[in-house]
Amino acid sequence: MEHEYDDLVERVRRIRNVENASSVLNWDQEVMMPEKGVEARAQELSTLSSIKHEILTDDETGEILDSVKPNGEDEEAVVREIQREYTRSVEVPDELVEEISDTSSRAHPVWKKAREKSDFDEFAPTLERLVELKREYAEEIDPDRDPYAVLFDDFEPYIDLETAERVLTNLRDSIKPLIDDIRDSDVEVEKVLGSEYTDERQREIAETALEEMGYDFSRGRLDTSPHPFTSGNTFDARVTTRFTNPLDALMSTIHEMGHALYIQGLPDEGYATPLSEARDLTVHESQSRLWENHVGRSRAFWDYFAPKLNQTLETEVSPGALYRSVNEVSPHPVRVESDELTYHMHIVLRFEIEKDLIRGEIEVDEVPGIWNDKVEEYLGIRPENDAEGCLQDIHWSHGSFGYFPTYSLGSVLAAQVFDAADDEIEDLNGKISRGNFSHLRDWLKEEIHRHGKRYETDDLIRRVTGDDLNVDPFVEYAEEKFGEIYGV
Amino acid sequence: MEHEYDDLVERVRRIRNVENASSVLNWDQEVMMPEKGVEARAQELSTLSSIKHEILTDDETGEILDSVKPNGEDEEAVVREIQREYTRSVEVPDELVEEISDTSSRAHPVWKKAREKSDFDEFAPTLERLVELKREYAEEIDPDRDPYAVLFDDFEPYIDLETAERVLTNLRDSIKPLIDDIRDSDVEVEKVLGSEYTDERQREIAETALEEMGYDFSRGRLDTSPHPFTSGNTFDARVTTRFTNPLDALMSTIHEMGHALYIQGLPDEGYATPLSEARDLTVHESQSRLWENHVGRSRAFWDYFAPKLNQTLETEVSPGALYRSVNEVSPHPVRVESDELTYHMHIVLRFEIEKDLIRGEIEVDEVPGIWNDKVEEYLGIRPENDAEGCLQDIHWSHGSFGYFPTYSLGSVLAAQVFDAADDEIEDLNGKISRGNFSHLRDWLKEEIHRHGKRYETDDLIRRVTGDDLNVDPFVEYAEEKFGEIYGV
Repeated sequence: MEHEYDDLVERVRRIRNVENASSVLNWDQEVMMPEKGVEARAQELSTLSSIKHEILTDDETGEILDSVKPNGEDEEAVVREIQREYTRSVEVPDELVEEISDTSSRAHPVWKKAREKSDFDEFAPTLERLVELKREYAEEIDPDRDPYAVLFDDFEPYIDLETAERVLTNLRDSIKPLIDDIRDSDVEVEKVLGSEYTDERQREIAETALEEMGYDFSRGRLDTSPHPFTSGNTFDARVTTRFTNPLDALMSTIHEMGHALYIQGLPDEGYATPLSEARDLTVHESQSRLWENHVGRSRAFWDYFAPKLNQTLETEVSPGALYRSVNEVSPHPVRVESDELTYHMHIVLRFEIEKDLIRGEIEVDEVPGIWNDKVEEYLGIRPENDAEGCLQDIHWSHGSFGYFPTYSLGSVLAAQVFDAADDEIEDLNGKISRGNFSHLRDWLKEEIHRHGKRYETDDLIRRVTGDDLNVDPFVEYAEEKFGEIYGV
Repeated sequence: MEHEYDDLVERVRRIRNVENASSVLNWDQEVMMPEKGVEARAQELSTLSSIKHEILTDDETGEILDSVKPNGEDEEAVVREIQREYTRSVEVPDELVEEISDTSSRAHPVWKKAREKSDFDEFAPTLERLVELKREYAEEIDPDRDPYAVLFDDFEPYIDLETAERVLTNLRDSIKPLIDDIRDSDVEVEKVLGSEYTDERQREIAETALEEMGYDFSRGRLDTSPHPFTSGNTFDARVTTRFTNPLDALMSTIHEMGHALYIQGLPDEGYATPLSEARDLTVHESQSRLWENHVGRSRAFWDYFAPKLNQTLETEVSPGALYRSVNEVSPHPVRVESDELTYHMHIVLRFEIEKDLIRGEIEVDEVPGIWNDKVEEYLGIRPENDAEGCLQDIHWSHGSFGYFPTYSLGSVLAAQVFDAADDEIEDLNGKISRGNFSHLRDWLKEEIHRHGKRYETDDLIRRVTGDDLNVDPFVEYAEEKFGEIYGV
């Protein structure tokens, strides 16, 4: 029995080593690779991907999974996660996987060009094909279930779609009035610190923040890339950022660092198995949003960090002005330009539209109109064209339907987790205001990071927060913070 | 028939993509990876290496090789190279390969510690085991041949050992008198430009040289690492250097660039097959040495480059002084600290010792004494201890016997190749002195780079130089250059 479990683990390690190699190659491509290297890199990644697929879907993997008898909680978790991965991989015919992969490769330049020209019609046939293919994909996995629920499972396997729908609907209904009130408020928040600061200064600030917050540079790096991201494993969790203006760059860096602290906090033991892997997107995003919003956008943080920032930039901006500036609410048609609050309306509208698209309740050519109407309804502004409307995001061109909601679910969970930490750590805000982040970091590691994929997500959320995923803590947090700033 | 060739190529591409992925991982490890990443990286590289081995030694590879009928020169070359690789891989039992790999992994820290303490006895048992294992390895491949010749084949498959021995003996006998004369000469060459210049200035100089000489930055990068190296493929050939002082850094960078120009000059067509791969170590080293020594250490180059260097460093050193400084001959016990001329004596003595060791003509414990005697005989100095004697180089701790000679063979070939280029390019030195490097670069690409592994090495050498590998051009070049500088 034990022998079979060991065989399974050896196979899993092999798969993970190949995936981790691909991850380094992807990082290098975004951060270091010279322009012409793409030709070689595409072939390397494609070969590694097919090798991984072959090891995973090999008959022997199935045989081991059929006969293995896991012993204890940890082994059960490993078998559960691999079984899930195996089943998803063997249920979808290779030809369909390839067609989806080919179609989305070809979709990317089409989407890019359509966005440049702000011409949705140019992208519509491709989007239609991707919707069809993803419906087929969902049907192969489970013809009896709602196809969108099946797709959502790919990104968030252990939170059911009903929960996600309930949370996002509550979120929409709770924060829309708040956004409306802020729009009507007379308070003007001043944006401070523009784009006149050098990259070197901005880097210095970002590095200081990461060091203070406990990011381990012996297990990571900070670099720049056009789209900030985090990648790696517990031994080597790398962060990228971009230097635009000091505050945006800092918030973006802290966000990515939140992801990286999760990865660095995974256990060395069980490396290259699910026991040393982060839970899925919602939990991951909860960690980045917790550090970005509940720490980085808190008054306590700015009381501590303002002098350091002022010293580096040779400025004299007050903690209060910095705090207010990073919390400015200003509806924008583009998701990635949005503030902490209005951001969620962007997610909700994408969620509503992609659900209806996959379920066949709306047609592709209706998307631009519905999109713009929803932006107007939720945010009080209307996109001027499709480039800043339904063509703004890359995700659908990748065939990713079901990904967007995890962004907001992560924020919602972040508020729950921060509340739980606040209950258990004495004077947490006081600690943050004195630059003492270690209690929070250790608590997150103890409660979440060190468990890897030991627990299913809904189970983990209950263990950490004592509750199911729900919007109340986020709404309370948002009403308090933005209410105070905007006098609403 | 054609079908089988296509199957072979597909298999080769797969192998090469895995190897190229490993190459990126190795580059990252040397240049970018944070300290603790080594744990994950070792596992990734080990998995990729075993996957590569499995694809190469798969029965199907053998079956395809048995039945494939190559059509034309290019297909014949691909089959020849893969057949050779396959045969070497299947002839050696996996257990022996693993034992060699394990033993050399363990040997590395032992060698390092022994070198730190300058205590050969501590390394001797490990070296003895490695010698035994490599003898066994050679015997598995061909029990009827001289084992050193079999090992040499791993690094230089298409130059026979007799040729190498003849060349290296001639080299030793021709340049020893020259070194002796220089030692007796009254001329003192002044070293200019010390370690007081910033890395930024040294980088600027190195980048300027690479741009001028035609290194394509859209297919490569320049970074720093403790041990400069070049890696990659025709789409992405990266160079590293280290900044010590402006002239050493520049010569080291140009050396690596010579390797990189070879790689960048390989054809895009046939990528990930032997047709887009560099010939073995001697030819590779001929390209680095040609650019480093025949260009970078030439008077013509300094007539052109001195003003640029002076401008960057805000100095006023004459072209003649720079030219003499980079050509200073000064025997040193350490190979990597040696000049262009005395360097070869280091190679010759390693070659003589490792040949005798593998053939069982000397014992491991005799090595330090023989080493020091040879240094004294060839260079007129004696190492003060084993750290600067037989423990100085890492190669034997890797189990690499047969690698060293290719360094000198490369220099010898560089002189032959430069002579051929000089015959065919009108006023080559004049062109270099005007900073026009494109004719030389194009000629090398046309004559050598674009062929990949199409020709066996000895055949390629005859095609390019009209002659077999021989020392005459190198000796003539060295006598003329150093004779003029040292008045001997």
